[in-house]
Amino acid sequence: MIKAGIIGSTGYAGQELVRLLMQHKDAEIVWYGSRSYIDQKYYDVFHNMFEIVDADCMDDNMEELAEKADVIFTATPQGLCSSLVSEEVLSKTKIIDLSADFRIKDADRYEEWYGIKHPSRDFIKEAVYGLCEINREDVKKARLIANPGCYPTCSILSIYPMAKEGLIDMDTIIIDAKSGTSGAGRGAKVNNLYCEVNENIKAYGVASHRHTPEIEDQLGYASEQQVVLNFTPHLVPMNRGILVSAYASLKEDVTYEKVKSIYDSYYKKEKFVRVLPENVCPETRWVEGSNYVDLNFKIDQRTGRIIMMGAMDNLVKGAAGQAVQNMNLMFGLPETEGLELVPMFP
Amino acid sequence: MIKAGIIGSTGYAGQELVRLLMQHKDAEIVWYGSRSYIDQKYYDVFHNMFEIVDADCMDDNMEELAEKADVIFTATPQGLCSSLVSEEVLSKTKIIDLSADFRIKDADRYEEWYGIKHPSRDFIKEAVYGLCEINREDVKKARLIANPGCYPTCSILSIYPMAKEGLIDMDTIIIDAKSGTSGAGRGAKVNNLYCEVNENIKAYGVASHRHTPEIEDQLGYASEQQVVLNFTPHLVPMNRGILVSAYASLKEDVTYEKVKSIYDSYYKKEKFVRVLPENVCPETRWVEGSNYVDLNFKIDQRTGRIIMMGAMDNLVKGAAGQAVQNMNLMFGLPETEGLELVPMFP
Amino acid sequence: MIKAGIIGSTGYAGQELVRLLMQHKDAEIVWYGSRSYIDQKYYDVFHNMFEIVDADCMDDNMEELAEKADVIFTATPQGLCSSLVSEEVLSKTKIIDLSADFRIKDADRYEEWYGIKHPSRDFIKEAVYGLCEINREDVKKARLIANPGCYPTCSILSIYPMAKEGLIDMDTIIIDAKSGTSGAGRGAKVNNLYCEVNENIKAYGVASHRHTPEIEDQLGYASEQQVVLNFTPHLVPMNRGILVSAYASLKEDVTYEKVKSIYDSYYKKEKFVRVLPENVCPETRWVEGSNYVDLNFKIDQRTGRIIMMGAMDNLVKGAAGQAVQNMNLMFGLPETEGLELVPMFP
Amino acid sequence: MIKAGIIGSTGYAGQELVRLLMQHKDAEIVWYGSRSYIDQKYYDVFHNMFEIVDADCMDDNMEELAEKADVIFTATPQGLCSSLVSEEVLSKTKIIDLSADFRIKDADRYEEWYGIKHPSRDFIKEAVYGLCEINREDVKKARLIANPGCYPTCSILSIYPMAKEGLIDMDTIIIDAKSGTSGAGRGAKVNNLYCEVNENIKAYGVASHRHTPEIEDQLGYASEQQVVLNFTPHLVPMNRGILVSAYASLKEDVTYEKVKSIYDSYYKKEKFVRVLPENVCPETRWVEGSNYVDLNFKIDQRTGRIIMMGAMDNLVKGAAGQAVQNMNLMFGLPETEGLELVPMFP
Repeated sequence: MIKAGIIGSTGYAGQELVRLLMQHKDAEIVWYGSRSYIDQKYYDVFHNMFEIVDADCMDDNMEELAEKADVIFTATPQGLCSSLVSEEVLSKTKIIDLSADFRIKDADRYEEWYGIKHPSRDFIKEAVYGLCEINREDVKKARLIANPGCYPTCSILSIYPMAKEGLIDMDTIIIDAKSGTSGAGRGAKVNNLYCEVNENIKAYGVASHRHTPEIEDQLGYASEQQVVLNFTPHLVPMNRGILVSAYASLKEDVTYEKVKSIYDSYYKKEKFVRVLPENVCPETRWVEGSNYVDLNFKIDQRTGRIIMMGAMDNLVKGAAGQAVQNMNLMFGLPETEGLELVPMFP
Repeated sequence: MIKAGIIGSTGYAGQELVRLLMQHKDAEIVWYGSRSYIDQKYYDVFHNMFEIVDADCMDDNMEELAEKADVIFTATPQGLCSSLVSEEVLSKTKIIDLSADFRIKDADRYEEWYGIKHPSRDFIKEAVYGLCEINREDVKKARLIANPGCYPTCSILSIYPMAKEGLIDMDTIIIDAKSGTSGAGRGAKVNNLYCEVNENIKAYGVASHRHTPEIEDQLGYASEQQVVLNFTPHLVPMNRGILVSAYASLKEDVTYEKVKSIYDSYYKKEKFVRVLPENVCPETRWVEGSNYVDLNFKIDQRTGRIIMMGAMDNLVKGAAGQAVQNMNLMFGLPETEGLELVPMFP
Repeated sequence: MIKAGIIGSTGYAGQELVRLLMQHKDAEIVWYGSRSYIDQKYYDVFHNMFEIVDADCMDDNMEELAEKADVIFTATPQGLCSSLVSEEVLSKTKIIDLSADFRIKDADRYEEWYGIKHPSRDFIKEAVYGLCEINREDVKKARLIANPGCYPTCSILSIYPMAKEGLIDMDTIIIDAKSGTSGAGRGAKVNNLYCEVNENIKAYGVASHRHTPEIEDQLGYASEQQVVLNFTPHLVPMNRGILVSAYASLKEDVTYEKVKSIYDSYYKKEKFVRVLPENVCPETRWVEGSNYVDLNFKIDQRTGRIIMMGAMDNLVKGAAGQAVQNMNLMFGLPETEGLELVPMFP
Repeated sequence: MIKAGIIGSTGYAGQELVRLLMQHKDAEIVWYGSRSYIDQKYYDVFHNMFEIVDADCMDDNMEELAEKADVIFTATPQGLCSSLVSEEVLSKTKIIDLSADFRIKDADRYEEWYGIKHPSRDFIKEAVYGLCEINREDVKKARLIANPGCYPTCSILSIYPMAKEGLIDMDTIIIDAKSGTSGAGRGAKVNNLYCEVNENIKAYGVASHRHTPEIEDQLGYASEQQVVLNFTPHLVPMNRGILVSAYASLKEDVTYEKVKSIYDSYYKKEKFVRVLPENVCPETRWVEGSNYVDLNFKIDQRTGRIIMMGAMDNLVKGAAGQAVQNMNLMFGLPETEGLELVPMFP
């Protein structure tokens, strides 16, 4: 039985981790970290957990936790995990960091986009970018996982086969993404109040969102060239779900069949990636509560572009589910364990 | 492995049955009945099932199905199950009927409230009202289960202990209930369009809703007297969930502690009923996707009334989950099998 | 041109006042009071007002405002208006208070339910309860208006004719009310975040909500007896709207026609009260953005009860619209001026 | 007083026309056309109109209507207006067609994209594309107006200044648009049910949506070259609102100030177009219920692209409001009459 600790267990991603781990037969939670709710019953914060979780919320003590836990999930704001990690900690336990601290290999670039100083640059190199479908072998051997961002997970998986195969002009990529509101976190901000989000859609972080360099880096590795792209996220009045519509110019004339066979070859064996039948667009409702990413594409002969589309649950494949998937790989368990959740509709 | 057939598998309750049975380790679905989508892939109707269910939708053939299935779920409009059931069918298989056909023991009363003729009155007596928490032993031995209605399940469980203990005046019961829109079904009606339901709340079926006699009957059995009550359902702009606020006059002065101990004595051992801590009101968000019913009550000394409250997921405990719970009991499985789903939030 | 000042102009009710007054041909706003946003452009807080309102937000200075304004609207938390009102202020200007400070004639009762000390008990007697349909003549002569609460407005208008005519047993009244989330205000609280409210319904303030004594008092005046009742509010995932379902036992057998004629006699001349055709239930979608209250009732012969129903927009008739209606009466303008807004659907 | 007839008055756009015209002081509605609800009270279909509209729904008789009405609005599916228009009709009345029949000047192109035969090609030339901000002078003289589509209105106004000034590469335009569900119409379709739309976002009509040629044509006129672009609409779980995020490569280095001054020069005098302050993104909540289009842009130095953004209410500026704006121009009224509605929030 894997002993897991969660630092930041009372955010939306942290709570989703609790939901998933409670249904995982080879893991148990030994630490419900939460600075905001120390000594309160976890079920007082999330009543869905009443009679399921009896533990109290505890302070975020990485040292103590390293003694108790086989794996620590940090579902915390940027800068926290990187300030707590150390060789001593990593010698005792594994860390899966759901924040951005170890996702960008170039520390200067991280500091520029995130506006904070990186406190543990030495560990950046060691950290493995935990997008299992792409880095599976490295994940298995990792001590420190940089769990991918929600938008990057969906964006990268949507575009990856075309980038890797060199079929699109990497200078023409535009990613227009839409997210449910749980992605904005559980902080008490006027802008996230029900009446402010409901009956509204807006773009935010235009040309400046922090997930941009993460996507650029990974697509850069795939295409073996430097990538600069446009990424525009939008806030949608729904709880969960991310939808990506990505555009790029095709470098050559390709048929639907050709591209379909490429996507199939990349993802056919992937349990959590579903390449949909022709003309079926991904929709967030079909993946809710599950670890699936649904993908499809459309070739527009008129403009010579391909539209690559992806849908997933931002809290599962975009955060907690992917973290569990990484945990499974790191501990030699079946990759799908605890994640074979059928999407819930409606 | 229990072989299960579903007649009416493409409604919301039918599809929820599929979701639950796909995650049930001792059952498999052998028949996806759907008049509307015959010969289409089930996943073409519900894309969440892509790569999970590969079967086609089939016609609703009870005869043929009785040969193949150990249990048949009928998630169909009133009148269908009762027109198909027969001694021959029941000699070969068990039936769990999610419609109202066998819920009312008095056939005249059924016909009066439902406005249709009951085609198989003989089976009404045999049918067991499948509210497991109350009729567990009878359910275990049943061939034919009348799976309770969504509103009745939540209403009855909320009021039952007070009725059974004789602590409330049964002539004073008023049930004000609120339901998510999946309860209205998947039929293409203008009134259920997104723009008609969103940003709206309304009462419907005031003083005439068909779930009224079902609630009255069961509370009548509990209190051993005839019960006439007010039941008012409301439609709420959300997908899932039922909330019940029930009012009744107390027959004597009782303390919070007294009533709490009664509710606990009825439900402490019940896995799917959670009596919440004092002053925590049930909310539908805390049970979504799960088979839980959350209950609580408040005594109003000023008016001498008790307010009894319940929340549950109408598609799970109010339909498909309860059906699976009944199946588990009928086949000697652990009652919770396939139903230990942690509520999903947000 | 009436010069109007608003203290608390950046809450939802305050902003709705701005919307209505901008479309009122005989009033202009001279003061946008807002402690939270002093010196910021009003349109920076509410971008809908861009190019419509150019003013800055100002401090809440009642003294200064009394010099400038013919009428002051206080859309503020309890206790503020009552701490600022004085004979000097009222000698210079009129006040329409949207808080509860002057709604309860018995100051002890106010203090008990609201948990704060009333700082200006002397003015309670003078204040007129501004439910225009009932107190029209007094409103016309008032200097100080207690603008009714949202739930009370809808509840009282729904029940008033039956109470006044003595047709219901006043000891049996149960009001089950449902409100959109704008009623919870614009404060940054976790409980009002989008993901906490969406896909949820809950009761709150059960047997203890502060609008209870206000409803009891007004129905007490109507029935000329002391009234104690149950009032249960619920939070609904929608922006605007209040729906009331009220129950009471009939004191005698009455026909639909009899009750209809009573409601018609009370409300036929009322521009903002619509008694709907038989069997059409009030729904919040049909009044959104307007000053209408839609009413109807259903007699349940089985239980001897009447169900009285009302729907309105909590921010209009339940707050800002009613305040403007009061202003119109106080200044001798046509009562409907600036309020003839057709409900917006969908 | 202008006498107006509406053919198709019981769709969402038709009903919005009724709402606007009821608040227009120089127009009255003389005909509520609706094939689906002939002889029913209009308020039976839309209860918001109870005690506001007393008329019955009538058949769609263009001949008879031409005798009675000064202007006919056709808020009908494609093909209807074009099959009813004639020289005789136009000699008696003016027509504002909210369908696509006369928007595309090249009839072959219309038939190709819409898949139907155009029954009155002769009138295409005469029809004026009623985007008032661009074709104001022609609108004033027109007998037949092609009221622009919802997506095209928002897309064209967002991009127009850059296209007209030749600052963007017209071969690089990608329009990613998002719409509320009222845009999908009031037809009873499973896909538009509450539970299918709620908690979901999806793209549809990818690389094939019918509004594509309309946008291309108008931007082609502006830039004086043939334009081929990508247009991807998405369905958002909200009632009203369209948001456009449009991308294009800049042809030269331009500063924020330069582009801002261009947008201002095009739109400063336009009452219904608001160019927002720097860094304020358009959001649909700020225009709801009004005729405004909110615009802004962001220059991305990294990619050399400009992101042009627009938000409006699809039923007002995107349909009924623009139709009234056209009517005002055609009849020599102030362009803003009946349209000075302050956006309603929340």
